[in-house]
Amino acid sequence: MINNINDTLLCDFYELTMGNGYYQNGFYRKKTYFDVFFRNVPDNGGFAIAAGLEQVIDYIENLHFTPEDIAFLRSKKIFDEGFLDYLLHFRFTGDIYAVPEGTPIFPGEPILTVAAPAIEAQLVETFILLSLNHQSLIATKANRIVRAAAGRPVLEFGSRRAQGADGAILGARAAYIGGCAGTACTVSDQIYNVPAGGTMAHSWVQMFDTEYDAFKTYCELYPHDTTLLVDTYSVLKSGVPNAIRAFKEILVPQGITNFGIRLDSGDITYLSKKARKMLDDAGLTTCKIVASNSLDEYIIRDLIQQGACIDTFGVGERLITSKSEPVFGGVYKLCAVEDGDKLIPKIKISENTAKITNPHFKKLYRLYENQSGKAIADLICVHDEKIDSTAPLEIFDPEATWKRKTITDFTAKEMMVPIFRNGQKVYQSPDIKEIQSYCLQQVDLLWDEVKRFENPHRYYVDLSQKLWDIKHELLEKRKK
Amino acid sequence: MINNINDTLLCDFYELTMGNGYYQNGFYRKKTYFDVFFRNVPDNGGFAIAAGLEQVIDYIENLHFTPEDIAFLRSKKIFDEGFLDYLLHFRFTGDIYAVPEGTPIFPGEPILTVAAPAIEAQLVETFILLSLNHQSLIATKANRIVRAAAGRPVLEFGSRRAQGADGAILGARAAYIGGCAGTACTVSDQIYNVPAGGTMAHSWVQMFDTEYDAFKTYCELYPHDTTLLVDTYSVLKSGVPNAIRAFKEILVPQGITNFGIRLDSGDITYLSKKARKMLDDAGLTTCKIVASNSLDEYIIRDLIQQGACIDTFGVGERLITSKSEPVFGGVYKLCAVEDGDKLIPKIKISENTAKITNPHFKKLYRLYENQSGKAIADLICVHDEKIDSTAPLEIFDPEATWKRKTITDFTAKEMMVPIFRNGQKVYQSPDIKEIQSYCLQQVDLLWDEVKRFENPHRYYVDLSQKLWDIKHELLEKRKK
Repeated sequence: MINNINDTLLCDFYELTMGNGYYQNGFYRKKTYFDVFFRNVPDNGGFAIAAGLEQVIDYIENLHFTPEDIAFLRSKKIFDEGFLDYLLHFRFTGDIYAVPEGTPIFPGEPILTVAAPAIEAQLVETFILLSLNHQSLIATKANRIVRAAAGRPVLEFGSRRAQGADGAILGARAAYIGGCAGTACTVSDQIYNVPAGGTMAHSWVQMFDTEYDAFKTYCELYPHDTTLLVDTYSVLKSGVPNAIRAFKEILVPQGITNFGIRLDSGDITYLSKKARKMLDDAGLTTCKIVASNSLDEYIIRDLIQQGACIDTFGVGERLITSKSEPVFGGVYKLCAVEDGDKLIPKIKISENTAKITNPHFKKLYRLYENQSGKAIADLICVHDEKIDSTAPLEIFDPEATWKRKTITDFTAKEMMVPIFRNGQKVYQSPDIKEIQSYCLQQVDLLWDEVKRFENPHRYYVDLSQKLWDIKHELLEKRKK
Repeated sequence: MINNINDTLLCDFYELTMGNGYYQNGFYRKKTYFDVFFRNVPDNGGFAIAAGLEQVIDYIENLHFTPEDIAFLRSKKIFDEGFLDYLLHFRFTGDIYAVPEGTPIFPGEPILTVAAPAIEAQLVETFILLSLNHQSLIATKANRIVRAAAGRPVLEFGSRRAQGADGAILGARAAYIGGCAGTACTVSDQIYNVPAGGTMAHSWVQMFDTEYDAFKTYCELYPHDTTLLVDTYSVLKSGVPNAIRAFKEILVPQGITNFGIRLDSGDITYLSKKARKMLDDAGLTTCKIVASNSLDEYIIRDLIQQGACIDTFGVGERLITSKSEPVFGGVYKLCAVEDGDKLIPKIKISENTAKITNPHFKKLYRLYENQSGKAIADLICVHDEKIDSTAPLEIFDPEATWKRKTITDFTAKEMMVPIFRNGQKVYQSPDIKEIQSYCLQQVDLLWDEVKRFENPHRYYVDLSQKLWDIKHELLEKRKK
């Protein structure tokens, strides 16, 4: 993998050409506000899971240009020397607000806001998007797969098919946030405390003269953590019988009962039922069956419906790349610019209505029904608004404004928290286990209708009246 | 991104549990042979492009366990102290053979072979697969997109949607190998010499009071490299007219003619034709039009067929993640084990015939027809075979052995070259421009029928008679 590089230059080149322009025309001290938001939930799901913030924090804290970076940029012969000198002393001095990792998030709402001088805010665009897009994608997919597995542990096995080393290592982290029980990726355990585990490949079995010898040796080596891979030759004719023999000869006499077998090919439903029967008939009712062949949420749901006897799922390429939809489309859009002590809201128009942005420096509330505890709507407000949850609140659909609803007996929670203030970190990322717990608990607060895989109920993301008015005033002005 | 980590632990945990097992049962000095090969070309294409070898080389040269790594492994309480001590002094001592980067590759053939003591060969499995799978995926996709663009430059714009930092940085490298003209990713230029470029985002336009001011300022700043983004408000009503005005007022008087506009939304065919006409009517016939909205090989082909007036394509998420098929399924399979001075071929059987491996330590030939220069078939041989291209050669389909063909007047080229011998690097990666040239030139040597997007002709990948005999002998033996 790429090591020992300065990721400050992991930016789109236009961020530097624009930065140079802002420097030369004096805009560079102008404070700008940029939002990260996304437009569509992958796999047509009802919500996504935010992840990747911890890496954004590391990146922001480490932002700097080395003399070598400056020399590289100088060699392009388009940058002003004043700008290059400015970069040599560059550090991030702005504010960042974001929803914590593990939070369920919805299309159109800000999930991270950068408020910083123009050059700084522009420079961090690529990395912030890259980190949030990647990990939110994988956490979202993992959460779907974990929900399909209905309580059975899901292990992340996909490193070898990941899109690069970060794809593997941080993908395992994001998968854990979304609810996976562990990973096969050793270094993700070392760095991020994602529990790593694993037993054997087909090559282990092939190295021995017989499958039984391979199994027996493994049981002797790892009596307390044995999962035998039973499909190197024939699952039912040799794999399972040899596994049963090894378990009974080596482990059962020691009183050990927590062993397992792994199926990695063939018809998993059929084979798991047959294998279960063979194991049970041999008295090995505690033997677990792990399955791991091109699984995703749909296949896992089908396997369970068909009565497959599987205790644990190992999920590879379809999780680590989010194969069915491998892109999380977070964008980074200017929403306001400071002019003296005035904040000027900015909007991006598009021929495509859905691509029109929500202007202004904003805050995000999630409204929970007090009786059920469930989340009922998100409300995007202007930064200086405050929701009074003791009074009835009228919310409305920002596209179909006649659709209105008054809610009472609710709690309003502000979702974005300060991460940086004036360039100083003011937030401590929780331990990864805490992030996972928070994620699963927050997903529990969504209605089942929002969690459906097919045609989920669209969760309400509304604008406050004040924000709606500002947006429509800008649209009207632009029309003229 | 993840920085300053030791990627030696970027391995599946089972490689360590197996390694510990090989250590304890004395297998660890046994020389093993593993092949990397893949089974299906992404997007149902006729061939893939090999990439990612340079990063494998860096990884192998850097392989080592730090005392911290050993302490981490010791904390798992399952590894033998002798094994941990062995790891502390671990380095790679084996041989590696591989096809050079940029080579067109086909299903079933070895593209990299590791010949090394069991623990070493097992440990490198994950990283080798990860690197080759990722970069071959992107190089293959890029080559499809570049072929669809039919000579027009394709720029890689996808960093923000990549699956992690390596996905962006090495993805840009792989895209360049596959034929892209450049990238937006600055650090890929700094580290890998992939030319980076870029101009402006919508935020640049929004920062100014008027679109015209934004364009004028940009032309003044970068007179020799200006591409104006014309869709912030309305392409035809404001973007193009303002661009024309800025070009004519600032650049044309200086005699500059190599400027352009970029379309990033809306109906690209319609808008590009209208914009072309407006530019031409204004006398700006040299103004280039860049298009960049959710493009891939299919959309580019359609745009060209519909007569869209586009000179350059900027391709983002659909290239950097290979969205339509985001997984390259390379596998790593044991094919032989040394026993004293004998080499024992190994096979992996599967209920799925396509998953049965080709046993033994092998070499790969590509056969070129002398008259046309075109590649006609690949031939997988046992390591000690040599093709005599002065004699007629009978080749046959390994699945349908009655399909036979005798070829004459051909050249046989050995495709895998030595990369490491006894742990020493014996290969120097070419410059990236050379890799790209080699790739494009080798793709030219494939018949058009193999290069079709839909239903390409299946290129022949045959086994020598000797290898076929060994494989079928092993299958027969296993059946008994």
